Amino acid sequence: MVSARKWIYAKRAEGEIQETNFQTVTEELPALQDGDFLVETEYFSLDAGLRGYMQLGILPVGSPIIGTAVAKVLQSNRAEFPAGVYVCARIGWCTHAILNPDKQKDNRPYLVPSLEGHSRALGLGALGLSGNTAYFGFLEICKPREGETVVVSGAAGAVGSLVGQIAKIKGCHVVGLAGTEEKVRWLKEIGFDAAINYRDASVREQLAAATPRGIDCYFDNVGGELTEMVRERMNLFGRISVCGTVSSYNREQPSLISDPQRDFVSKQLRQEGFVVFRWLNRWMEGITQMAEWIKQGKLVARETVYEGFDTAPKSFISMLKGDNVGKAVIKVQ
Amino acid sequence: MVSARKWIYAKRAEGEIQETNFQTVTEELPALQDGDFLVETEYFSLDAGLRGYMQLGILPVGSPIIGTAVAKVLQSNRAEFPAGVYVCARIGWCTHAILNPDKQKDNRPYLVPSLEGHSRALGLGALGLSGNTAYFGFLEICKPREGETVVVSGAAGAVGSLVGQIAKIKGCHVVGLAGTEEKVRWLKEIGFDAAINYRDASVREQLAAATPRGIDCYFDNVGGELTEMVRERMNLFGRISVCGTVSSYNREQPSLISDPQRDFVSKQLRQEGFVVFRWLNRWMEGITQMAEWIKQGKLVARETVYEGFDTAPKSFISMLKGDNVGKAVIKVQ
Repeated sequence: MVSARKWIYAKRAEGEIQETNFQTVTEELPALQDGDFLVETEYFSLDAGLRGYMQLGILPVGSPIIGTAVAKVLQSNRAEFPAGVYVCARIGWCTHAILNPDKQKDNRPYLVPSLEGHSRALGLGALGLSGNTAYFGFLEICKPREGETVVVSGAAGAVGSLVGQIAKIKGCHVVGLAGTEEKVRWLKEIGFDAAINYRDASVREQLAAATPRGIDCYFDNVGGELTEMVRERMNLFGRISVCGTVSSYNREQPSLISDPQRDFVSKQLRQEGFVVFRWLNRWMEGITQMAEWIKQGKLVARETVYEGFDTAPKSFISMLKGDNVGKAVIKVQ
Repeated sequence: MVSARKWIYAKRAEGEIQETNFQTVTEELPALQDGDFLVETEYFSLDAGLRGYMQLGILPVGSPIIGTAVAKVLQSNRAEFPAGVYVCARIGWCTHAILNPDKQKDNRPYLVPSLEGHSRALGLGALGLSGNTAYFGFLEICKPREGETVVVSGAAGAVGSLVGQIAKIKGCHVVGLAGTEEKVRWLKEIGFDAAINYRDASVREQLAAATPRGIDCYFDNVGGELTEMVRERMNLFGRISVCGTVSSYNREQPSLISDPQRDFVSKQLRQEGFVVFRWLNRWMEGITQMAEWIKQGKLVARETVYEGFDTAPKSFISMLKGDNVGKAVIKVQ
C-alpha cells in the first residue's frame, strides 16, 4: 500500500490568498489494476492561472489542487511506461498517483521530453505547458513579423520569458515589463532589447522611449492599467494576445466585477477593430451581394432623408443623438 | 462659372457638438480641364464616424467636411461619366464639385449602383459605405455560423440594421439594441428575433432573456457600458467586431482619456484570449520546436525551484506576488 499526500483547496479565498486556504490530506492508493502504473512526483508546477480557477469556482472548494507534474514510474502494468521512466502528467499537487492513459484520453501522460544538461523540470516549463502557451499563444495570435516591436508583460515569468525570446528569434524588437530590478537585469541578459520595471513611476515615459516605432504585438499576462498604457502605443493593425489576468486575481468579490481581461482568456474571445477600407479591393463584391439580397426581398434598406443642404449640421447633430433610423442622408435640394 | 457651396469644420467642438462648429463657404469652380467632369450633389451621407474624425483631429479645423455623395454629372470631358449619369464620390458636404478619376486613384468615383424601385440614396447606404461596413465588418470578423446568437448595438442605424438582417440571412438568432421604442418596433418588423431599448432600466435582464444560449457574435457600434454588459454574456470562442464608438464621441478632452473602443477601431486592433489546450492536437510540435531552440542556444529556460511538498501553498502565494523568475516549480523531495 502506498500513501499519497495531496494538497486540497480547503477554504474559499476572499481577496488576498493565504496559506490557510490550503490543506493536505493523505490517502491510501488502491492496488494497481491492468494497465495502471504508479508514479512518485519529482516536480509539480505552480501556475498563476490556478488562482483564477479558484476565484471563479472552476476549481470548487474541497477539490484537490490541479496542475502538471513530472513523476517517476515506481511500478507498472503498462509496457510503454516501465518502472524507472519519468512522465509528465496532470496529477495536481500530490506525492503519488496511479495513472492509466486509457482512462485519461484528453489528458494522457507522456514521457518527459528532457534535454541533456537540463533538469526534468523543463518538462513543466519550456518543454511543457508554459512553453506551448508561449509558442502557440504568441505565434498563432500575434503572428509577429521581422522588425516589429513586441511588448510582453509578466516578462520574467514562465511564459513571458519564453515569449520575449521567441520574438527575438523571429527578428523582433522586444520590450519586457517586469516587477523588480533583478528581473529587469535578467531580461536584458537573455536578449530583451529593453526591460522596464513597471513599479517605477516613469513607466509610461520609459515605455515610450523603448518603443520609438510604437508597438505591433502585445503579449499580455496581467491586464489592468499597464495594459491600457501599452494599448495607447499600439500601431495600426496591432495584435494583442491575452494570456493572463494576474492583476485581477486577488480582487475581492470578483463575481460582481466585470473583468474584460478575464472574460477574454476564459472564453477565448476575439476582438478586432476595423475600418472598412481594408477591403477596398473587394468593394464591388460587397455591393453586388447586398443588391442581390435586396432584390430577393431578404434585406430591407431604410433611409432617413433630411431635406436641404442648409440642414446638414443640424441633421448631423440630430443623427448623433440617434434620431435617424437606417441610413441618414441629406437631400441637397 | 459654377458656384459651389460647401460645409466647413469651422470651430473646434468641445464636448457636445453644436451647429456653430460648422460654417458654409461658397467658391467659384474653375473651368473643366481634359478628363474632368462637373457634378451636382443629389444626396450626401451623414456618418457618425465623422464626429470621431473631428474629435481626434484627423479632420483639422478649417477643413471641408468629408463624406460620400450621390451626384449628377452636369458637364463632362470624360466618356465613361457622360452628362446625366449619377456617380458615387467622396466629395464631402457640398453642392457641386469637379472630379477627375485620374487624380483620385484610391478614391475613384463610380456609377451609382442603383436598384429599381429604390432611391439613389441607396448608393450611400446598403449599396455603399454602410453596406460594405456591415457586409465585411460582420462576415469577415464575426464569421457567424448558423444557429448562433448575434447581438448588434446601434441596431437601427445605417450599418446595424444591415448587420442584423445579414445575420438572419445566415441563420442566426439576432438581438438588436436601440435607443427608442419606435426603433425597437421597426427592428422586430424587419426580422430581428428580439430588440431591446437600451435606455430601459432592465436592459441587463432583457438581454439575458433574449439570449438564453449566450452570445456568440457581437457587432458593436457604441462601446462603453453596454458593451461590458454584452461581453459578460459572450460564449466560449465568441467574436466581437468593433465598428464604432458612438458612446465616446461627445466626451470632453478626449485626448486625455484612454478609450479602448476608439483605439480598436482607428488602429484596427485585434485582441483574442486563449487557453493553450486549444492546440492540444499540435502539442508535440510546440515542444519539439522549443527543444530545438534551446539546443541551438537561442532560448534560455529558467526555473525557480521551491523545495519541498509542504511549501507548495506558501510558494504559490509567493509566486503570485511575482517572487519567481521563469517557471516556478515545487521539487517534492
